Amino acid sequence: MGWMQDEAGLGKCAANYVPLTPLSHLLRAAEVFADQEALVYGSLRRSYGEYHERVSRLASALVGAGVAPGEVVATLLPNVPAQCEAHFAIPACGAVLNTINIRLDVATVAYILDHGGAKVLIADSQFLLLAMEAIEAMEGPAPLVIEVPDEQAGVPGLGEQMDYEDFLATGDPGFDWILPQDEWESLSLNYTSGTTGKPKGVVYSHRGAYLLTMGTPISWRMTLFPVILQIPPLFHCNGWHHVWMAPVFGGRIVCCRNVTAKAVFDAIADEGVTHFGGAPIVLNMLINAPEEERRATDHLVRVFTAGAPPPAATLERIEAMGFEVTHVYGLTETYGHVTECLWQQDWEGIEGDERAARKARQGVAFPMMEPCVVLDGNGTPVPRDGATQGEIGLRGNAVMKGYYRNPEATAEAFAPGYFLSGDIAVQHPDGYLQIADRAKDIIISGGENVSSVEVEGVLMHHPAVLLCAVVAKPDDKWGEVPCAFVELKNSASVGEDELIAFARERLAGFKTPKAVVFGELPKTSTGKIQKFELRRRIELGAS
Amino acid sequence: MGWMQDEAGLGKCAANYVPLTPLSHLLRAAEVFADQEALVYGSLRRSYGEYHERVSRLASALVGAGVAPGEVVATLLPNVPAQCEAHFAIPACGAVLNTINIRLDVATVAYILDHGGAKVLIADSQFLLLAMEAIEAMEGPAPLVIEVPDEQAGVPGLGEQMDYEDFLATGDPGFDWILPQDEWESLSLNYTSGTTGKPKGVVYSHRGAYLLTMGTPISWRMTLFPVILQIPPLFHCNGWHHVWMAPVFGGRIVCCRNVTAKAVFDAIADEGVTHFGGAPIVLNMLINAPEEERRATDHLVRVFTAGAPPPAATLERIEAMGFEVTHVYGLTETYGHVTECLWQQDWEGIEGDERAARKARQGVAFPMMEPCVVLDGNGTPVPRDGATQGEIGLRGNAVMKGYYRNPEATAEAFAPGYFLSGDIAVQHPDGYLQIADRAKDIIISGGENVSSVEVEGVLMHHPAVLLCAVVAKPDDKWGEVPCAFVELKNSASVGEDELIAFARERLAGFKTPKAVVFGELPKTSTGKIQKFELRRRIELGAS
Repeated sequence: MGWMQDEAGLGKCAANYVPLTPLSHLLRAAEVFADQEALVYGSLRRSYGEYHERVSRLASALVGAGVAPGEVVATLLPNVPAQCEAHFAIPACGAVLNTINIRLDVATVAYILDHGGAKVLIADSQFLLLAMEAIEAMEGPAPLVIEVPDEQAGVPGLGEQMDYEDFLATGDPGFDWILPQDEWESLSLNYTSGTTGKPKGVVYSHRGAYLLTMGTPISWRMTLFPVILQIPPLFHCNGWHHVWMAPVFGGRIVCCRNVTAKAVFDAIADEGVTHFGGAPIVLNMLINAPEEERRATDHLVRVFTAGAPPPAATLERIEAMGFEVTHVYGLTETYGHVTECLWQQDWEGIEGDERAARKARQGVAFPMMEPCVVLDGNGTPVPRDGATQGEIGLRGNAVMKGYYRNPEATAEAFAPGYFLSGDIAVQHPDGYLQIADRAKDIIISGGENVSSVEVEGVLMHHPAVLLCAVVAKPDDKWGEVPCAFVELKNSASVGEDELIAFARERLAGFKTPKAVVFGELPKTSTGKIQKFELRRRIELGAS
Repeated sequence: MGWMQDEAGLGKCAANYVPLTPLSHLLRAAEVFADQEALVYGSLRRSYGEYHERVSRLASALVGAGVAPGEVVATLLPNVPAQCEAHFAIPACGAVLNTINIRLDVATVAYILDHGGAKVLIADSQFLLLAMEAIEAMEGPAPLVIEVPDEQAGVPGLGEQMDYEDFLATGDPGFDWILPQDEWESLSLNYTSGTTGKPKGVVYSHRGAYLLTMGTPISWRMTLFPVILQIPPLFHCNGWHHVWMAPVFGGRIVCCRNVTAKAVFDAIADEGVTHFGGAPIVLNMLINAPEEERRATDHLVRVFTAGAPPPAATLERIEAMGFEVTHVYGLTETYGHVTECLWQQDWEGIEGDERAARKARQGVAFPMMEPCVVLDGNGTPVPRDGATQGEIGLRGNAVMKGYYRNPEATAEAFAPGYFLSGDIAVQHPDGYLQIADRAKDIIISGGENVSSVEVEGVLMHHPAVLLCAVVAKPDDKWGEVPCAFVELKNSASVGEDELIAFARERLAGFKTPKAVVFGELPKTSTGKIQKFELRRRIELGAS
């Protein structure tokens, strides 16, 4: 401990200690990058000066509407400028930002509004009906509703609630932001998708979000004035914090309401997008885009991909198109990405399968995190042999404060002094993590563990396969066997037997799927395939 | 304030809160960049794995030598690998790093050793005599001395003290670092140059140094694997924190014991240096280097310059040589640089005098700092009109804890809620700071303020002038008049009258120097011209 013999006069004071908060980034940008473009959405363009003024108005209007520090303000918005503004304005009035997934059902939205106790709900016109039905279904008091029409997307206002621009007009553009006095104060509340049981409310601190914004850019090779296409929904880990990070760099956020291949190619060509994050499914969408939607570009685009391990076939093809992909990994409980498959300088010559295999690893800790560990059942790190499996344990300043109003679940998640991720992985001798599977996705066939990820990686190499997911199917003889759900490319075709034979050539017998089901796969809003839904289909006799 | 209605279970714990410290960067690099080259010095090359092991040994050896947490360990070293190792190892044993300027006199070194209470002194063989004489002159108990010979520079050990490598050999390479439990703990102790009165011991925290390393790279456009030439002495603001920052990026530090034009050009050409910091005098040295010392390079080198406003003539010429220069500003009390003359995207077309004039500004706050202000005598910010002068006030996480064992001086420095820099500046409408002068360097002639910086800027445009400094000379009629001290380029010549006439063409009469003194200028170890010494010469009748 570095306390000196005499620390008299060496304490914290106004001059030398300021609580960390991502809000400081926009305050600085309003000073340093006032005329620089901050937000782009269709034909709408806003400078940092304008952005700051609108955020100040919104914060002030929320105070005027009776929002007190520590209260919750929710949003039900796609990636539109109002959602970006909410990311600063809600904390800037001392409140806690609760972004709600626009694809949830009425009952779940109602549960979240009740559980978080939202005082205000800012909702897009397209999702206003969902909002109103959810409010109808609430047990507690209804929030004030602010409606955000979307002219750029041709979504008109319904006109029965307070209009967003009218609400802003009630605010003071010179409003003094209410900044945290303690960086541990709560910044945002993000409900997990809740595939089992009720969703849990993950709480982020100002400190954690600040440190994530500072640790993210390094391996992403981000420097001044990036152009970031906001593909990750801002209601998912606050959109990987890109909106909070961009002002540090005088960066431009290009809002993306509907993620289509055309929208992405257009943004790269027309706005000069340099960076974006997206699930592997987004990369697949670009790879398989029809020729007429593609646009030529003369600059490198750096991509963070997360949400699922990127299949080797996807990596190979997207890199050939001029995208540089870094696989990152994290969970809602870790503010988003906390490990990165950092590409080493002496790996430059590695090509082909080996390159894709390395790129598919989850990698090493970001700078704001402690070194990664893989823990056995006793909470002891497993050997770094690339073979022994255990559960990934995460520790560092980008781990949540805990679950809101659920101290038992928080204590359980943090029991071994790490956040237990629920992901089963090996650690390679070089320290890189590689996920074998989600704990619950492991298939146990004849006593052998089968990694669904491995089987999926093989199937993705078949030229007709667009997407696939492998889950356990109960089997009298083997206990479980792998069952593949496959979505084919447009106009491609392959039969069940042919695909099983293709897999058998590349996999051990016990790993080879015993059944294949063709059809569109169910996905979450962030492009994750919903395996629980596939398991339900198996229970219902789909295969 | 963002405390939620119910914060039960949302407190800090081992999984979600880790004190910030630059030590974490090397611990991570030892994991992530184990085989990557970390330190280069002549023919010596060390990987991050080796670096980490040697640091662990040194920390362990210091504990073995009786160093307790919170005690001070001093160094008297040029920019050699042992000094880099000390930057991690001394805090890693819980002690506080006190780097002492190798160019100080015996009495001052003795004062610092007594005031800081160093338990151990790690000294280069070339400065061992200075060390031993200083210890002889101490009032308190003598520190243990560890001698660091320098084979690469041909500086042999004297052999009478414990040898550095022998000392390391007593340490355990598996030593568990003693990390801060509170990020406000003291990391290092840096004595100011003390041009008036006794030097003051500036104390840095682990938190402040960490945040400086994270805020520095952005405008410097630093990404993975930079090669940093360590020109700023590590005993000055801990070498601008480059050694603590490099591991975040897997960067390579190229040690520079003697800063010569040849050494800099060679490091750029042979080691691929991408970034370095240096005072304008270093840039001048490169500009004026003889042809045979210059080396061609095909890559851009990004330079931070600080210590004095870079003269326009210097900026123009160094940029023409392929260096990209950003002027940064700070003081020992602010961990080094805290403002940066960030070059705006829409300034790209600006060339010539206007470009140099903009680049010479001190600029805007780095991301780890609050917005800059210029305060009048009442502590109120002056208008941002580019004309009204005041004193720069600095606030943020890169402001010192305070002065060691001097709470009165600390309280005075922080009186208005800002650290008062002692620099007189204007703030432009775009928020950029521009220093008119050090408060004590302003010349008051006939009631008019004369900025010595402005007069120096004009003289530097004369083709024969290598360096110059303008100070006040007492005058019966005007109170003070400007007096110029000028160092000429090799084989160049100009007379006093000619230079005064040159200045008069470009300056108002009251700003024009009334006398010129030719000769080599006295400089500090960091290349700052010692104006107090020039004033002393005037008192002694030098002009």
